[in-house]
Amino acid sequence: MALLGIDLGGTKLAFAIFSEEGKILFKESVSLGDRKGSEVGKCITDGIWKSIWQAELQGDGINSIGISVPGISYIKEGTVWAPNIPGWDDYPLLQEVKKISKDIPVTIDSDRACYILGELWQGNARGCHDAIFLSVGTGIGAGIVVNGKILRGSHDIAGCIGWMALRGPFEKKYTDCGCFEYYASGEGIAKVAREFLEDQKDYNGELKNKGIKEITSYDVFAAYYNGDPLAVRVIQLCVEFWGMAVANLVSLFNPEKIIMGGGVFGPAVSLLPAIKEEAARWAQPIGITQVSLEVSALAGDAGVYGAGFLALKHIQEFGL
Amino acid sequence: MALLGIDLGGTKLAFAIFSEEGKILFKESVSLGDRKGSEVGKCITDGIWKSIWQAELQGDGINSIGISVPGISYIKEGTVWAPNIPGWDDYPLLQEVKKISKDIPVTIDSDRACYILGELWQGNARGCHDAIFLSVGTGIGAGIVVNGKILRGSHDIAGCIGWMALRGPFEKKYTDCGCFEYYASGEGIAKVAREFLEDQKDYNGELKNKGIKEITSYDVFAAYYNGDPLAVRVIQLCVEFWGMAVANLVSLFNPEKIIMGGGVFGPAVSLLPAIKEEAARWAQPIGITQVSLEVSALAGDAGVYGAGFLALKHIQEFGL
Repeated sequence: MALLGIDLGGTKLAFAIFSEEGKILFKESVSLGDRKGSEVGKCITDGIWKSIWQAELQGDGINSIGISVPGISYIKEGTVWAPNIPGWDDYPLLQEVKKISKDIPVTIDSDRACYILGELWQGNARGCHDAIFLSVGTGIGAGIVVNGKILRGSHDIAGCIGWMALRGPFEKKYTDCGCFEYYASGEGIAKVAREFLEDQKDYNGELKNKGIKEITSYDVFAAYYNGDPLAVRVIQLCVEFWGMAVANLVSLFNPEKIIMGGGVFGPAVSLLPAIKEEAARWAQPIGITQVSLEVSALAGDAGVYGAGFLALKHIQEFGL
Repeated sequence: MALLGIDLGGTKLAFAIFSEEGKILFKESVSLGDRKGSEVGKCITDGIWKSIWQAELQGDGINSIGISVPGISYIKEGTVWAPNIPGWDDYPLLQEVKKISKDIPVTIDSDRACYILGELWQGNARGCHDAIFLSVGTGIGAGIVVNGKILRGSHDIAGCIGWMALRGPFEKKYTDCGCFEYYASGEGIAKVAREFLEDQKDYNGELKNKGIKEITSYDVFAAYYNGDPLAVRVIQLCVEFWGMAVANLVSLFNPEKIIMGGGVFGPAVSLLPAIKEEAARWAQPIGITQVSLEVSALAGDAGVYGAGFLALKHIQEFGL
C-alpha cells in the first residue's frame, strides 16, 4: 500500500509518497512561481500523474490521496478558499483532482488540520487523543484534535485562533487579521517593530539601520538575540500573547499536548519556557499541569505528513 | 420508560422524572441547608429512593439516572470535585449512588456540560451538532458540544472559560478565579463596582447608599437600568468581556449556536444585541455570520433537563 500526501503552500507545492507506516518513499517540491487559479490546480494534477507513475515504478499503486490546503476546505462541497492563491475564492479542487485520480479516494483538509494530523501520525503528538498545533507563521492558525478527531465546526472554519481577542478595547487595526495575529504572527512582529520604531524617536539600535518598511520578523529576532532593547520589547509582547493563547487553549480544551510550529518556531523555539511560564499565570491551574508544550517535530514537513495521514485515515475508515 | 435527572447546585438539589420525550412527570427541590460531605451524598440517595418510589406509583420504573454536579466529574474514577460543597474535593459519588441504584445505570457530568445537553434536548439548541452554553452566574463556565458530543478534554476539565485571558498584562487579582471571571461573573460585577466606587470619590449615585461590602450584581443591574453612570461603566466593561469571549468561541469552534445562561442572564438578557455587536468586531468574520446568539430556554432548569438527557443518552448508547 502507498499513500500520496500533497501540501499546497502559498509559494510551493510538496508531494510525498508514504508507506502505511509513515515512511517517505519519494518526495518532491515544486515552486508555484506566479501561477494562479486553475494553473495551480494543473500543477497539482500533473504532480499526481507523476506520483502515480513513481509509485508504480516502485511496484506499488497509490491507494489514497490527501491534500493540505492553505485556507478553508469545504468538505461537503469539495471546494477550497485559499486567500493567498489568486482565483481560489471557491476553487473546485476535489472535482479537478477526481478527473485524474478516478477511483483513488481523495481527502482535502486545511493546513492547520494537517499540521496536527502530521504530528499525531509521525511527530510529537503520537498517541494523543486531545492535542493542538498552534501554527505561527505569516498568519496564525490552530489545528485542534478533540477525542481523536479534527475539530471542524459547523462550517469547516474552526481553529481560526489568529482572530482571538486578547487585548480590549477593540482597535480598528485588528479588523483585517484579528487581534492575536496582529501582534504575534510573523507579519505582526515586523509590524509592531515598525510601530515602536515610529514612536521611539530616540532609538539608535540595530533596527534603525534597516529601512523601516523592509524590517522582517527575522531581523527582529536577530536583534532580540543581540539584546537590542526595542526588539526585546517586541518579542516580550509576543511572549505575553503566545502565553495567553496557550492558556486559553488549556482552559477551554484541557489538551494533553500543545505543539508550537510554523515559520516563527523557528527562531522563537528558545522562548518556549517563557511562554509556558506566562501561560501558567493565566490558565486553569489544574489543566496547565496536565499539558505538555512542545515544538513541532516535523517543522516544514508537518503539512505533507498530515496530508499522508489524511490519505491513511480514509482507508482506515472506509477500507481499501 | 422513565428517566431520573438530578441537579446538584451549591445551595439546593433538584430531582425530576422525565418521559423519554422529555416531559416532566414529577419534580421536587430540596434545600441543602448547611449539609456537607456525605450528608449531601445522603440527601441525593434519599431523593433517589423517593423518586424510584414515585415512578413506580405512576406505573413506571426508573430506567436510567443522570446527575449534574457543580464542579468536575471524573468519569473514569466516578468521583466529583465540587468547590462549593465542603468535603467534596474528591467525593466518591458514583459509588455512593450505586449502593442504592443497583442495576439502574448512573451517569454523572458537570453542570456546564448538563446545561448545553439540556438545551440540546429540550431548549434552544435542539437539532444542533456544534453548540456552546456560556453560563454566567456566581462563576463562569462553558458547556461545549462538538459534533454532537460533550468536549471533555484529556482529564474531564475542558470548558473552564472563566480562566480565559482577555486583558494583558497579567494582574495578581486574576490568580484565584481567572481574568474573564474576575470582571464578568456575578461576583465580578459586584467586585468591579466596589473597585470603581473606591476610585471615584466624587460619585454620588444610588450605589453610594449601599454599604460598599454589601453591593451585589443585582444592585449594579438595577442602577444600570436607572442610568447610573458608575453602573453603566461596570456593565459596559462586562459587555466588552462577554463580547470578546463569544468572539473567541466563534473563532475557535465555529458553532451553530451560543446560548447565554446562568443567573446573570437574567438581568443581562437585554444586553444580547450589544454583546453580539461587540463580538462581531473581534471574531473571524465568516464564522460570526454563521452563529446564532440566544438566551437559555430552560433558565434554572437547564441542569436538571441536562441530567435527564444524560440518563437518556446512556440508554441510547448502551440499550435498556
